[in-house]
Amino acid sequence: MKLGVCYYPEQWPEEQWAKDADEMVSLGLQLVRIGEFSWSRIESERNQFTWEWLDRAIQVLAARGLNIVLGSPTACPPRWLIDECPEILATDEYGNPRKFGSRRHYCFSSRRYREECERIVTVMAQRYGGHPAVVAWQTDNEYGCHETTLSYSKSAADAFRDWLAERYKSVEQLNESWGTVFWSQEYQSFGEIDPPVATVTEANPAHQLDYRRFASDEVVSFNQLQVKIIRHCAPNADVIHNFMGFSTDFDHHEVGRDLDVSTWDSYPLGFLEQGWFSEKEKQAYLRQGHPDFAAFHHDLYRGCSNGRMWVMEQQPGPVNWAPYNPAPLPGMVRTWTWEAFAHGAEVVSYFRWRQAPFGQEQMHSGLNLPNGDRDTAFDEVLQVAQELEELTITGSTIAPVALVWSYQAQWITQIQPQGENFSSLIWAYTCYSVLREIGLDVDIVSPQASLEGYQLVVCPCLPTVDESFPSTLASLDVPVLLGMRTGSKTENYQIPRELPPGPLSSLIPLKVSRVESLRPGASEAVVYEGKHYQVEQWLEWVDSDLLPLASTEDGKGVWFHHNKVHYLATWPEPGFLREVMLRLCKQAGLAVGVLPEGARSRRLGDLQFVFNYNNHAIRLPDNGGRVFRLGQPEIPAGGIAAYKIND
Amino acid sequence: MKLGVCYYPEQWPEEQWAKDADEMVSLGLQLVRIGEFSWSRIESERNQFTWEWLDRAIQVLAARGLNIVLGSPTACPPRWLIDECPEILATDEYGNPRKFGSRRHYCFSSRRYREECERIVTVMAQRYGGHPAVVAWQTDNEYGCHETTLSYSKSAADAFRDWLAERYKSVEQLNESWGTVFWSQEYQSFGEIDPPVATVTEANPAHQLDYRRFASDEVVSFNQLQVKIIRHCAPNADVIHNFMGFSTDFDHHEVGRDLDVSTWDSYPLGFLEQGWFSEKEKQAYLRQGHPDFAAFHHDLYRGCSNGRMWVMEQQPGPVNWAPYNPAPLPGMVRTWTWEAFAHGAEVVSYFRWRQAPFGQEQMHSGLNLPNGDRDTAFDEVLQVAQELEELTITGSTIAPVALVWSYQAQWITQIQPQGENFSSLIWAYTCYSVLREIGLDVDIVSPQASLEGYQLVVCPCLPTVDESFPSTLASLDVPVLLGMRTGSKTENYQIPRELPPGPLSSLIPLKVSRVESLRPGASEAVVYEGKHYQVEQWLEWVDSDLLPLASTEDGKGVWFHHNKVHYLATWPEPGFLREVMLRLCKQAGLAVGVLPEGARSRRLGDLQFVFNYNNHAIRLPDNGGRVFRLGQPEIPAGGIAAYKIND
Amino acid sequence: MKLGVCYYPEQWPEEQWAKDADEMVSLGLQLVRIGEFSWSRIESERNQFTWEWLDRAIQVLAARGLNIVLGSPTACPPRWLIDECPEILATDEYGNPRKFGSRRHYCFSSRRYREECERIVTVMAQRYGGHPAVVAWQTDNEYGCHETTLSYSKSAADAFRDWLAERYKSVEQLNESWGTVFWSQEYQSFGEIDPPVATVTEANPAHQLDYRRFASDEVVSFNQLQVKIIRHCAPNADVIHNFMGFSTDFDHHEVGRDLDVSTWDSYPLGFLEQGWFSEKEKQAYLRQGHPDFAAFHHDLYRGCSNGRMWVMEQQPGPVNWAPYNPAPLPGMVRTWTWEAFAHGAEVVSYFRWRQAPFGQEQMHSGLNLPNGDRDTAFDEVLQVAQELEELTITGSTIAPVALVWSYQAQWITQIQPQGENFSSLIWAYTCYSVLREIGLDVDIVSPQASLEGYQLVVCPCLPTVDESFPSTLASLDVPVLLGMRTGSKTENYQIPRELPPGPLSSLIPLKVSRVESLRPGASEAVVYEGKHYQVEQWLEWVDSDLLPLASTEDGKGVWFHHNKVHYLATWPEPGFLREVMLRLCKQAGLAVGVLPEGARSRRLGDLQFVFNYNNHAIRLPDNGGRVFRLGQPEIPAGGIAAYKIND
Repeated sequence: MKLGVCYYPEQWPEEQWAKDADEMVSLGLQLVRIGEFSWSRIESERNQFTWEWLDRAIQVLAARGLNIVLGSPTACPPRWLIDECPEILATDEYGNPRKFGSRRHYCFSSRRYREECERIVTVMAQRYGGHPAVVAWQTDNEYGCHETTLSYSKSAADAFRDWLAERYKSVEQLNESWGTVFWSQEYQSFGEIDPPVATVTEANPAHQLDYRRFASDEVVSFNQLQVKIIRHCAPNADVIHNFMGFSTDFDHHEVGRDLDVSTWDSYPLGFLEQGWFSEKEKQAYLRQGHPDFAAFHHDLYRGCSNGRMWVMEQQPGPVNWAPYNPAPLPGMVRTWTWEAFAHGAEVVSYFRWRQAPFGQEQMHSGLNLPNGDRDTAFDEVLQVAQELEELTITGSTIAPVALVWSYQAQWITQIQPQGENFSSLIWAYTCYSVLREIGLDVDIVSPQASLEGYQLVVCPCLPTVDESFPSTLASLDVPVLLGMRTGSKTENYQIPRELPPGPLSSLIPLKVSRVESLRPGASEAVVYEGKHYQVEQWLEWVDSDLLPLASTEDGKGVWFHHNKVHYLATWPEPGFLREVMLRLCKQAGLAVGVLPEGARSRRLGDLQFVFNYNNHAIRLPDNGGRVFRLGQPEIPAGGIAAYKIND
Repeated sequence: MKLGVCYYPEQWPEEQWAKDADEMVSLGLQLVRIGEFSWSRIESERNQFTWEWLDRAIQVLAARGLNIVLGSPTACPPRWLIDECPEILATDEYGNPRKFGSRRHYCFSSRRYREECERIVTVMAQRYGGHPAVVAWQTDNEYGCHETTLSYSKSAADAFRDWLAERYKSVEQLNESWGTVFWSQEYQSFGEIDPPVATVTEANPAHQLDYRRFASDEVVSFNQLQVKIIRHCAPNADVIHNFMGFSTDFDHHEVGRDLDVSTWDSYPLGFLEQGWFSEKEKQAYLRQGHPDFAAFHHDLYRGCSNGRMWVMEQQPGPVNWAPYNPAPLPGMVRTWTWEAFAHGAEVVSYFRWRQAPFGQEQMHSGLNLPNGDRDTAFDEVLQVAQELEELTITGSTIAPVALVWSYQAQWITQIQPQGENFSSLIWAYTCYSVLREIGLDVDIVSPQASLEGYQLVVCPCLPTVDESFPSTLASLDVPVLLGMRTGSKTENYQIPRELPPGPLSSLIPLKVSRVESLRPGASEAVVYEGKHYQVEQWLEWVDSDLLPLASTEDGKGVWFHHNKVHYLATWPEPGFLREVMLRLCKQAGLAVGVLPEGARSRRLGDLQFVFNYNNHAIRLPDNGGRVFRLGQPEIPAGGIAAYKIND
Repeated sequence: MKLGVCYYPEQWPEEQWAKDADEMVSLGLQLVRIGEFSWSRIESERNQFTWEWLDRAIQVLAARGLNIVLGSPTACPPRWLIDECPEILATDEYGNPRKFGSRRHYCFSSRRYREECERIVTVMAQRYGGHPAVVAWQTDNEYGCHETTLSYSKSAADAFRDWLAERYKSVEQLNESWGTVFWSQEYQSFGEIDPPVATVTEANPAHQLDYRRFASDEVVSFNQLQVKIIRHCAPNADVIHNFMGFSTDFDHHEVGRDLDVSTWDSYPLGFLEQGWFSEKEKQAYLRQGHPDFAAFHHDLYRGCSNGRMWVMEQQPGPVNWAPYNPAPLPGMVRTWTWEAFAHGAEVVSYFRWRQAPFGQEQMHSGLNLPNGDRDTAFDEVLQVAQELEELTITGSTIAPVALVWSYQAQWITQIQPQGENFSSLIWAYTCYSVLREIGLDVDIVSPQASLEGYQLVVCPCLPTVDESFPSTLASLDVPVLLGMRTGSKTENYQIPRELPPGPLSSLIPLKVSRVESLRPGASEAVVYEGKHYQVEQWLEWVDSDLLPLASTEDGKGVWFHHNKVHYLATWPEPGFLREVMLRLCKQAGLAVGVLPEGARSRRLGDLQFVFNYNNHAIRLPDNGGRVFRLGQPEIPAGGIAAYKIND
């Protein structure tokens, strides 16, 4: 558990570097990320390299024992390079190139740009790959940020056609798979196929899904190119990338597989403001962030690179980019930091050391003010550094629940939501929230991950499943929850021959004959164990001989189970979803404990952490024997406590 | 009164066709529409025709006594054709071509595409024109769907200039008519005139109106081209087209004039969700549709082709394309079907026989599920088929009220609504609703239609009227209601010299000197017969010596009458509009009877149908002697009843 | 104090001109604006001039003693000119030219268009510059209307690069000033720099600010070109331009400096409907306009051309261009007219003499109806004309309060609002409203204006200040209020080295270390003199040894003062803002008197005017001795009164 910071030596006078490094050390930081936006400073004209400043910057840091994460500078190709090869630019859906002047203006599919990336990453990796202080390399920066995964350039269209030819071998096979006989869309050759964009009404959903898969694959191969070079030149360093919050345009599981560590950039307040949360939640958690936001991503990204996860950028104060930008509660930065560690982060690194007085992010706070004074978070980090030194944690951490999440599920439900606001991401997040509210630790895993050892498996929404998935689930012998739309599509975006849930009907004998989506405000009453609840948004008509656990008033079953496999055919209101989860836990023999509203917990080794996301204090239920290692039973607004577990 | 279905043999294995046809017959269907999206399957490369499959499909259906509606496949020009002549594509207002990959991507003004349509329709009509089972031909599919009436291609611009030259003869005449001296817009030649699009602020309204007229004329002539070929090759078949709901971008009266039957596609739930209805209505009628939606279109399209009307596509379950897609109430499909017949439909045809498991509409339900099982509506259709056999209806149906509707009125009020949300369509629909709520049957007719024989004529909003219209109205000697904006513009989109209502002031001596549009929430109180009501949205200042029937509190008359001609200068709240209609009915000697809220009625021959659009049962007022042929006085949610009328 | 009207002889038969002119005279008008949209009528082809009609029109007016404001016709280059040089057209942010067909389609940066303007203005000014009746010239029409200040044409891009080269001399200096090291944006030459548009995420804010400055400078130089020609040919005429409401895209102070009179177009109802006002205000002031709208602009534009201000276009009835277009209350046109005079207008001119029956503005009312009858406002103008003859006003008018307004402040806060809805314009307007509610007369002045003689200076938000500004303020020895964000940026859009308020910290010892923006509904409670208030939107964390006058509940000072300089670090609710202003007034020794809600006052010479913007009557507090020259203590809805002040 280490602390780090993001630093931009190129933005400050060289005479300040040593002072900065000294202060980092005295603050207790161990890791410094640099370099990821420095291309124009490294190579101001083609092949005119200026490495000396970077050499010295690394030297200043290394000399003080700081380790370095070095970023490849490919997120920002410089102006001269764009002018030399304008085909590098990504293209919007109307064919307009996205212009130079901010960042991430390149197209993942530009072969020309890949050559340039290969060139710059190679020279950089050759120069610093052997440096002992450079312990990790970050590829690029925030893939997909500012909606940059999808591009509609000529490069992309060409690469897409190649990708299709590779996938389908023959155009007849493609026509069959996509069902192009519908609306007279049959193709005679791969060369006829465009990206599915700017059509009069929606394009064929299989066409769209393949474009999403293709675009994701382009990110994967773009990243692999850099990883390969770096591994060759820096065999002992970790290769990482910094993912984003609520980012689903490419398959993070696949990119993560090529990395040593999946890191991510945690901005709880910014994502509350720009997210889908209700007005009530936005007011209640204004200066704390939503209680599950950071944890969801910790648990998600921990599942992308064999369990290794860092927070590469931790919000330290108000940011500049959300619709509104309040400040965290006092103590909140410390709480976010400890929460990350509790969820398995090896590193928490703050963005950024010092607020820049210029440029797009000049209103983004840092650990220090632009004039060099300490900003508010500085002292909270200092406290964490001291606590880290004092705290001993032993034992291992095992989450009892697996929540299965698939990026492809999100693409499929985005392409045809059927109800305007249906989101498999929000639904998965909602399931995750309810699980945490009842005190459970959760691993968010890919459908390809091993599910061995979990006591409960929740699949909120997996429209497509691999052939082996049903038998994998069958072999587990633990309760499994399959949510709506699971098994509803084939790999080619078709309704399965046997109707949904397709192959999963081998686990539970039912089929879905009809789907209703309901506008906000419309709902159906269901009865479960004598109590009435509402279900919303989505209602499947299920044909089955099974006796449902809950039904609508006119007798449609919405929750079925067969042995340990459960199928939930609707979107329950939170209170009913909790009942569903509680029943599954009971069946699993899992102990649960409902936390105070707005509080969450996580076990790390032999410590139980509790995080109070409320803007008021809470008091943990009296439990005489608890030994508190951090805080105490009364947890202040935005605060934490950690007590020892005696297993 | 026949039942039919839409069927896509090209989407299913040939071995299934016979089984499908057998089941159609046993369900009681008599008509099957096929072919309208089959171009790529018919002609996979230029002049490489594959008719055999279609021959066999027709044969399979015909052999079982099913009649066929054959669709010309021009709504979906195939990929190879687009690649050969990209100028076929329609163009958006920024000059971007609308891309291949869905449907309706062609431009009505492409002369090249007209040649191609002529070619494909000719070969198709020559092949099947004489087939005895092919009893009707559908031109294209849903003209204007996905906002495709207006295109801004070079073809369209060129054709527009020719259209203008034909209309105005000299550019001086155009300048005079449009008032181009305003803002220095005078033209020196027709060649200088662009489509009125992408201007800095609004373009000249007369310019805009002419573009709307031109675009409508292009649809008319596009359709005529096909009609002419089909009539030549299939002289005994009906030529039809399937219109849409709330579709006003081209003049359906003019297209309908060239057809034998105006058919339309009735999706009551989809149009409730995507329509302008209030949140309250969307909740109350969630699974029924708005009570006047289907009827309005039945009555409208019945007026387009000399009284002949079909429902070509009837919603059978949830659709895929509305913001939210609930399922109809049990029995609702039967109710919609009977309602169509009661309003004069000769055919009700369901879309579609079997839900497709692939393509854009895979979530659109049919009479059968993708796996071949019956879907819910199947049994309701079966019931209708049986009822049709058993029911005898005698006598003719005459609606006592004419509601005059003009497509041009809609264009004029869209071009300059004056108040942001003013819609002559919504206003006409509102008038129609109130008339039906008081139990009246209504014909919706064009301003060119004969008004002889009606007992009441309602003109909700006719900004322009033909020269002869005032004398036509004067000759009727029945109550006439002229709504706001009627007579407010000349043919050239100018304010008439004598001020509104222009030539109609010969019928009622008043003039409109000023117009106010009011934001939502703003209203004026009016007093009528001692009661207070609110008027909203629109308030005209009327100069007249007539004593108003109702006035605002500060004395502005809002409702005038002179002999039997009434002028309504505002948008009354529903309760007040009902009072207006009731007074007119009284003057007309028309019997009215207010129905329970959410119920509607329609007389067909000697039967009075009552439709319960509520989601709860209603009971018709006790009326001992009524003989019920369908249902009974207690009508369930979404149900119908029909009783015999003893005139 | 004169009355005038806008007139378009080219739109009416010549035989009507004399009658119109006679009626203008009998109505009491003295000034007539003509010609500003007449280019296509003056020059129908290149160098084919038709002056005769204009000669005669001027003659008809002049013969009756009417003075003329002649408009240069450059707001509407005719079609033939656009076809000859399409590069005249402005270009939107996606590179699409804005099309011919409405108005203001030219690009300010087109050098070709400037030549054409020079040509047409020269011939026009040579022809009419010496005409004794042409007492004023209007350059162009409503610069910036329809968002036309910013264009992204090639001409604009080229001119921007020249502008940058002139400003920064070297690209190194530009890189340094903009901080282009951020995100690797360093430039090697001025030629590499594009307009800051269509970037993937926001462009560098200094880049954006310079583009805003450049675009404003283009308007200034475009206007200067015409002014220079007119002054040469018509040395005795006033040169004017007609500004708009809430128009901030170019620096009106700078354009105004080149004019003799800043005139503006006052449409209180249109701007209420399309403005930011609350739903409650939009309902309450539906037919009156917001009580501060007209006054704000009178006071603002009076500060642009050495105190000379006219209303060039006064709304006379419903307009056509707002989302909703109600009519003014009876008497409201008279009230608006008197209010303009009370605020120093030399001329109030109505738009327009007669409503046009054709063209885009056919639903815009005038003093007369299209058929020649008088419209409602006619009689109100007649009344004003008579009152003007009867009323004697003596003495001078001096406003005690200066409110400092900067266009650059608006650009800076638009570029990075930090909170989505932050607007320095709304904030300045809010401060202005509160000052007027407590009965104060206000001059709105530029930061470069002299502040001598004012008793109170309010700077709502000035992110950048000139070097001399702090010492100017220091020398005044009157209370000064500095609002949030003042001094928060350098000239190069950077945070000042010493933190905000930068150089102004010499006046009050504090610094702003952090900024929070708050979503609507979020607020902080503050205590001032024992009472609780809320502050919203914006909250600065201020470091200072000063004892705050008000603080949040957790102790953050939000209002500080040091001697007479006050700093307000937040956006107070109206009641609290009033307390702030009242305290400042007390410190200034300024008498205040809270007016009835919805009423406003203004002193003109020895008369105190009171305007009742309510839709109900009010009664001024009894004050026996008052001698009323207009109206009486009971002021009707939308009415005025004026009484003599005995100083």
